[in-house]
Amino acid sequence: MRSLILNNIINTRRNLNLVLQHVKILREGQAYSTSVPLLPDPAALKILPENDIKEFNSYYPIVRNDIVTNKLVSDIPKLNERLERMLDYNAKEGRKLRPYLMIATYKYFTNEEDRTPENIRLMNILGWFIELMNAAYVMQDDIVDNSETRRGKPTWFKCKDVGINAVFDASLIESTCIQLLKTHFSAHKNYNKMLDAFLEMLRMTRVGFVVEAATVFDEFSEDLYYVIAQHKMGYYLLQFTTTLGTLLANKEDLMICQKAGRVFNELGCLYTIQVSQNCHLILF
Amino acid sequence: MRSLILNNIINTRRNLNLVLQHVKILREGQAYSTSVPLLPDPAALKILPENDIKEFNSYYPIVRNDIVTNKLVSDIPKLNERLERMLDYNAKEGRKLRPYLMIATYKYFTNEEDRTPENIRLMNILGWFIELMNAAYVMQDDIVDNSETRRGKPTWFKCKDVGINAVFDASLIESTCIQLLKTHFSAHKNYNKMLDAFLEMLRMTRVGFVVEAATVFDEFSEDLYYVIAQHKMGYYLLQFTTTLGTLLANKEDLMICQKAGRVFNELGCLYTIQVSQNCHLILF
Repeated sequence: MRSLILNNIINTRRNLNLVLQHVKILREGQAYSTSVPLLPDPAALKILPENDIKEFNSYYPIVRNDIVTNKLVSDIPKLNERLERMLDYNAKEGRKLRPYLMIATYKYFTNEEDRTPENIRLMNILGWFIELMNAAYVMQDDIVDNSETRRGKPTWFKCKDVGINAVFDASLIESTCIQLLKTHFSAHKNYNKMLDAFLEMLRMTRVGFVVEAATVFDEFSEDLYYVIAQHKMGYYLLQFTTTLGTLLANKEDLMICQKAGRVFNELGCLYTIQVSQNCHLILF
Repeated sequence: MRSLILNNIINTRRNLNLVLQHVKILREGQAYSTSVPLLPDPAALKILPENDIKEFNSYYPIVRNDIVTNKLVSDIPKLNERLERMLDYNAKEGRKLRPYLMIATYKYFTNEEDRTPENIRLMNILGWFIELMNAAYVMQDDIVDNSETRRGKPTWFKCKDVGINAVFDASLIESTCIQLLKTHFSAHKNYNKMLDAFLEMLRMTRVGFVVEAATVFDEFSEDLYYVIAQHKMGYYLLQFTTTLGTLLANKEDLMICQKAGRVFNELGCLYTIQVSQNCHLILF
């Protein structure tokens, strides 16, 4: 477990010690202090080698096509056009941290002979479902935060012909990915658990959205901050992605390891503090 | 199949003939005419006897409590309060057509000895999950339609301290119901199919929302109208509810009967035309 965090998330033993210092500060209720060096920005970490990234990106047109032309929506040209436009606008240019973490986890838990062309194909498709769900998450997060721009262009809901309909665009992406998961993975021994991880991610991030959206500034407390960080970051960035990686690799250890969940929550909280202090957008 | 529609949805053979006349008019592309008498308003039909309705309503506090205090959110008082308030505001006073259709279907397909106290309990809980999902649907539908009032009070998103956050409130209700379904029904032989029916309902209604929201008035066509009616009404009011009733009763006939799906789509379209001509809110 420590080793997985070391290799795929934090990268060096020095950083793990740093994490533990931060966790200690946080749990002892001390005021957060910059006297302890910041954790490395996960967006700046090299999670995957260039070749894997290139391969992953080559699957985007395949998965987009799958979503836009799947038989359930293929007779509604208006919907196909809109799906194509919203995916290109929102999903292509993300940082792709979550699929990379899932892929790194999958590779960590498998041997060369497990990684058949078919398994690599499934791994990349699963990665894109994670990334498309994240595009939907980001579209909604921008609404909660009333953000004007993202990645140098207007946020989707600020586009003049979108507005509040961004909400339904986002939930259509989510629903379609959830149903297409079945198409590709229903034969996988861990399919039910993979589906459950997606559904639990949706619930956890909704808890984060609702608590954040319903909190007015003067009520804000450290406890609420922790709840939001735990749901929107600890679970979603770390536990969700590594759980899917282990499930795809036919390993279940990580998911049932409660200690891992606690470590991820602490890490999520720390990253949230850091990105709040630096740049809010850095992790998406 | 005809008999189920007759008994639980349309009620008399005379009405079925009426449906067939309407279907014929619609499919032949004739302009819709009021010279054929309207179908009976399903909201005015007596779907369940009074005792069943009373019993169903007695389960509301149990299911609400289940959602508000389930262990996953029990340590966030702010969230518990908000969930309680939004459920009471949005879910208590609906017409409950969908759970009643599910219950009527379940009873139609079971014998007295199948309806043990435990099975009746599960039936009522499933009914409330359907109704709470519908409350979430209605909260979102009011946003797409920019509706001011519903059931004699402001719509949830028009309440002064809610606004756009209604979107996340609604999706939190959906996510929580989906995850609590597992708590109550994971031991049921048809659990995976029941879950799939909920997920497909979410996808179908999203298609309806997105097509409706993305359609500007002068582009509106009969085809698009049919798509919206089919997704938001035919599937959601009729196919979804009767599928769940048959699955709960351990019958699967209805779900795999494509003809039933087509009949439901036509019926859904007809009802949509009628409620558009009368009162938009009548079915919720």
